[in-house]
Amino acid sequence: MIDLTIDTTAVKHIIIDFIRKQLSQAGYTRGVINLSGGIDSALACTLAAEALGPQNVRAIRLPYRASSPDSLAHAQLVIDSLGVQSITYRITPMVAPLFKAFPEMSQLRRGNILARARMIVLYDQSVAFHGLPIGTGNKTEILLGYTTIYGDAACAINPLGDLYKTQVRQLARAVGVPEPIIQKPPSADLWDGQTDEGELGFTYTEVDQLLYLLVERRATLSECREAGFEEEFVRQVVGRIQRMHFKRVLPPVAVIPKGSA
Amino acid sequence: MIDLTIDTTAVKHIIIDFIRKQLSQAGYTRGVINLSGGIDSALACTLAAEALGPQNVRAIRLPYRASSPDSLAHAQLVIDSLGVQSITYRITPMVAPLFKAFPEMSQLRRGNILARARMIVLYDQSVAFHGLPIGTGNKTEILLGYTTIYGDAACAINPLGDLYKTQVRQLARAVGVPEPIIQKPPSADLWDGQTDEGELGFTYTEVDQLLYLLVERRATLSECREAGFEEEFVRQVVGRIQRMHFKRVLPPVAVIPKGSA
Repeated sequence: MIDLTIDTTAVKHIIIDFIRKQLSQAGYTRGVINLSGGIDSALACTLAAEALGPQNVRAIRLPYRASSPDSLAHAQLVIDSLGVQSITYRITPMVAPLFKAFPEMSQLRRGNILARARMIVLYDQSVAFHGLPIGTGNKTEILLGYTTIYGDAACAINPLGDLYKTQVRQLARAVGVPEPIIQKPPSADLWDGQTDEGELGFTYTEVDQLLYLLVERRATLSECREAGFEEEFVRQVVGRIQRMHFKRVLPPVAVIPKGSA
Repeated sequence: MIDLTIDTTAVKHIIIDFIRKQLSQAGYTRGVINLSGGIDSALACTLAAEALGPQNVRAIRLPYRASSPDSLAHAQLVIDSLGVQSITYRITPMVAPLFKAFPEMSQLRRGNILARARMIVLYDQSVAFHGLPIGTGNKTEILLGYTTIYGDAACAINPLGDLYKTQVRQLARAVGVPEPIIQKPPSADLWDGQTDEGELGFTYTEVDQLLYLLVERRATLSECREAGFEEEFVRQVVGRIQRMHFKRVLPPVAVIPKGSA
C-alpha cells in the first residue's frame, strides 16, 4: 500500500499562495468558480475564499434539468459556510435546442455539451465579475482524461491539478468542506445514479495508488504487477493515460520552416 | 518593407502532410471544420480536402441571427467547389437564453459566447462524423490574441498557425479559394459592418511586418523604429502580445513539492 497522505497544512498554504500570486500577476483580485456540489469545486472554492476573501469569490451554480437537487443543496452549503457571492443559472435552455436537433446523441455527447455550456457561462461571468475562472480539476481526472476538453477542464488557473482524488478528499476534510459533500460518491451528475467509479470501472483509491506508481515513480508493468496490481488493470490505465494525452497539451501547429518563407 | 512572400507550393505540401500525419497518428481519417465564410477557414478546408479527400471532410456552417447572409453564401462557394460534406446549424437558440438573462452584456461578451457556442457544435459534430476538429487560426491572430480562448481557438490540430494573415491570403489565392472570399475585408461577422482591421486599429499588412520583426527577428523597440514603425504602434502591439500570452499556453497548475506528500 502506497501512502498518499499529504501534509494538509503545508499543501493548503501552497495552494492559497498559488491562487493569490497567479491572480495578482494577471492583475486580478477576484475569482469565479463553477460550484457543482461535488468535492473538487467545494475545495477549490474554500481555498479561493481563504486566498482572496469570500467577497472576492463568486460561486456559479449551473444546474441542468436532470441534475440532482442534492447538487444545488450541497453547493449552497458551501456558499453559506464560506459567505462567498453566488449566482445560479439554469443551462437547460442553452443545450435543449442542440439535443433536440440531434436526437440520436449519445450520453457522452450530451455530457460534453453540458460541460462546455457551463464553461461558457463561467467564462462570461468571469468578465461580469472582473475575476479569473478558477479550475477544479484534480490530478487523477487529468491523467485519466476523465474531463471534457474546453469544458470542465477550461480555466485560467488550476489549484488542484497536482492532487490525486484521494488527496483532494483529505484536504477537503482538513479545511472543513461540509461532510455530506465529502461522503457522497463522486459523480459527474449527468444522469440519476451515475458515479465516477461506476463509469470508470475502478475506485479512486485503487487507481490513485497505481497512478502514483506509474507517474511519480515511473514504474514498469512488471513493477506494478509486483506491487500487487492486476496486469489487465495496469494496461487499461496506461492506455487511458496515453489515449487522453491530447487533453493535456496544446493542439499541434504545422510548423513552416523559414526556408519556405 | 519586409518580404513575407512564401513558396506556396512548398507550404501547401507541408500543411497537407501535417494534416494527414496528425490525423493518422491519432487514428483518424476524417476532419470537421467550422466554415465561417472567411478566408482562414476556406483555406483550412481546401487543404483538408486535399489531404483527406473531400468525402472525409465535413464543413460546419454555424450562422447566428446577426451573421451576414454573405458568410453563408461564401461558405457554400467553398463547399461546392471542393465537394466536401456539409451541415448547417443555426446557433441563435443556443445563445439567446444567455443574452436574454444578462441584457447588459457587452458586444465582447456576446462575441465570446458565439465563438464558444460554435466550438460546442464543432466538437459535437466531430464525434458524430468520427473526425477531428481542424482549427483555422492564423499566426497573426494567435500572436495578437484576437481569438476567443476555448472558442474559435479550440481545435485538435492547427494547420495555419504558423502563417501570418498576409501569407494566408497568398496561399488561399494559390490553392484557388474563391475570389470573393479573398477580396472581402476580414471580419468576425458579429455585427453589420464590423471588420478586423477597424476593430484592431491597424491593417494586417502593417502588423504582419511588425510581428515578423518582433517575433522572427527578435527586434528591439529601437530596431522597429529604425525600420520605420511608429513607437506608439510598436508599444501597442508588444503590449497585446504580452497581455494575450495566457491564450497561447496551458493554465498554470499549483505544483505540490513531493516533500509535502
